Amino acid sequence: MKDFDTVFDKVAIIGLGLIGSSLTRAISDKKLANQVLGFDGSEVVRAEARGIEGFGADVTETLEEAVSNADLIIMAVPVGAVGSLAQELCPHLKDGAILSDVGSVKKSIIDTVVPHLPETCHFVPGHPVAGTEYSGPKAGFSTLFEGRWCILTPIENTPRLEVEKVSNLWAGLGSDVEEMDAEHHDIVLAITSHIPHLIAYNIVGTAADLEEVTSSEVIKYSAGGFRDFTRIAASDPVMWRDVFMNNKEAVLEMLGRFTEDLTQLQRHIRRGDGQALEDLFTRTREIRRSIIEAGQATE
Amino acid sequence: MKDFDTVFDKVAIIGLGLIGSSLTRAISDKKLANQVLGFDGSEVVRAEARGIEGFGADVTETLEEAVSNADLIIMAVPVGAVGSLAQELCPHLKDGAILSDVGSVKKSIIDTVVPHLPETCHFVPGHPVAGTEYSGPKAGFSTLFEGRWCILTPIENTPRLEVEKVSNLWAGLGSDVEEMDAEHHDIVLAITSHIPHLIAYNIVGTAADLEEVTSSEVIKYSAGGFRDFTRIAASDPVMWRDVFMNNKEAVLEMLGRFTEDLTQLQRHIRRGDGQALEDLFTRTREIRRSIIEAGQATE
Repeated sequence: MKDFDTVFDKVAIIGLGLIGSSLTRAISDKKLANQVLGFDGSEVVRAEARGIEGFGADVTETLEEAVSNADLIIMAVPVGAVGSLAQELCPHLKDGAILSDVGSVKKSIIDTVVPHLPETCHFVPGHPVAGTEYSGPKAGFSTLFEGRWCILTPIENTPRLEVEKVSNLWAGLGSDVEEMDAEHHDIVLAITSHIPHLIAYNIVGTAADLEEVTSSEVIKYSAGGFRDFTRIAASDPVMWRDVFMNNKEAVLEMLGRFTEDLTQLQRHIRRGDGQALEDLFTRTREIRRSIIEAGQATE
Repeated sequence: MKDFDTVFDKVAIIGLGLIGSSLTRAISDKKLANQVLGFDGSEVVRAEARGIEGFGADVTETLEEAVSNADLIIMAVPVGAVGSLAQELCPHLKDGAILSDVGSVKKSIIDTVVPHLPETCHFVPGHPVAGTEYSGPKAGFSTLFEGRWCILTPIENTPRLEVEKVSNLWAGLGSDVEEMDAEHHDIVLAITSHIPHLIAYNIVGTAADLEEVTSSEVIKYSAGGFRDFTRIAASDPVMWRDVFMNNKEAVLEMLGRFTEDLTQLQRHIRRGDGQALEDLFTRTREIRRSIIEAGQATE
């Protein structure tokens, strides 16, 4: 039980992919709930999850079984599936239950969940900034959230106590918890996560389509930098499709800034302005150092 | 001496940064030359190199000392410095000496080196596709080239024997060696290395300049994808400035393709075409698998 009180009696995790299955393992390992229940809409995933040793959750056969007695329900499905999941599960929530999620986009999720929420329940939107390029229940691991940030974007008028219960859970999982409003979250993540993924997907696509350079050459010489982009561009296609569809405004805004800067860089190259290039490349080196100092990357 | 013959009696490495100092260590460790000589234009770097245990080279006080008796001279300086270095060292080359380099751009290097080359010597341009984001003589290590590709772009009429001597050295360092023409090299590397660096530098610059998002937020939430770009954008500023200044044509061409594709992706997002996004994101995932299978990345 470490130095945290049991925050919840029963926690239900809905969606048993990378994030959901990391949650079942971590909550169970760290004994942050008396019981962890898990459910996934796919029968194949449920069967797979049941076969995993140390999975940490009782996998139920129906959504209702998982949800109806839970004190905390965390929806760990792609952003585009959260709305219909909320609609389906909300009628089964018990009085006082807290609903939460792990989506990489917050404003559209709040808009789609709140209309379904019973008056006696609270929705505390969350986003653990953690992940890998792998998917599915086998990809999860209990230390995924350690030393990573979890952002909560509480809705107006949610009692502090409810927010703090969710916050304590994430702290118990080893995360640093931060609160901000949903709109700001969506802008911050557009630049730190969504645009990096978009341009990684894009360059891998560009490279694959070239006529002058064969795929085999792209693969062979990928250690020159390309390789690092392919890791990101191997992330879950449906999850990322939904992120871009549901954070359209912030993504397009940040993409505009990126393209504007890239056009200037292109001009520097065309005109042979080496000093401008060197200045930028020196500045960006500093940021890497700050990230290492902040413990968000290792040397 | 492993299963390679001593390819060279004396090898001189000029420029003792990450690549040069990895070469001195590796050639010495693998006993691929009877003597390794090292020189760097910076007195500070020479002193630093002399203080490193296992550095693998006798660091000379002048360029002439390092070069004049060497059978193979490898220039490991930024692309933009190769021309003036070749001009300075060529008069000291002994008859039959082979000159080589490690630059990430090949056509402009050939154009700048060949006019200085004595008739009795041969220039065999090379490019090990390996590196890290660190610089300087302390950053080097002897296994840097193992399992990586080294591309040679031989000039017309160079005797096969001379090319093979250089090829054998790289094979002895653990690299797979490939030959192609310089122009093709510059296109292949533009997409697999130069453009990935350019867009990494660019997005890190964009993120640093935003008013809506603080630097501290960018750093905190970098684990969402941005972090991986900062590693690449921490690469040596002068080296990379020179790459873009000297591979202008191929870089601008490939940047044009990248931007074209990005514009289309932007349109898919704006129009809400989720299927087009999902299709691309699924396709790019396959390429990652191929890179892992080819041993150029680990899971």
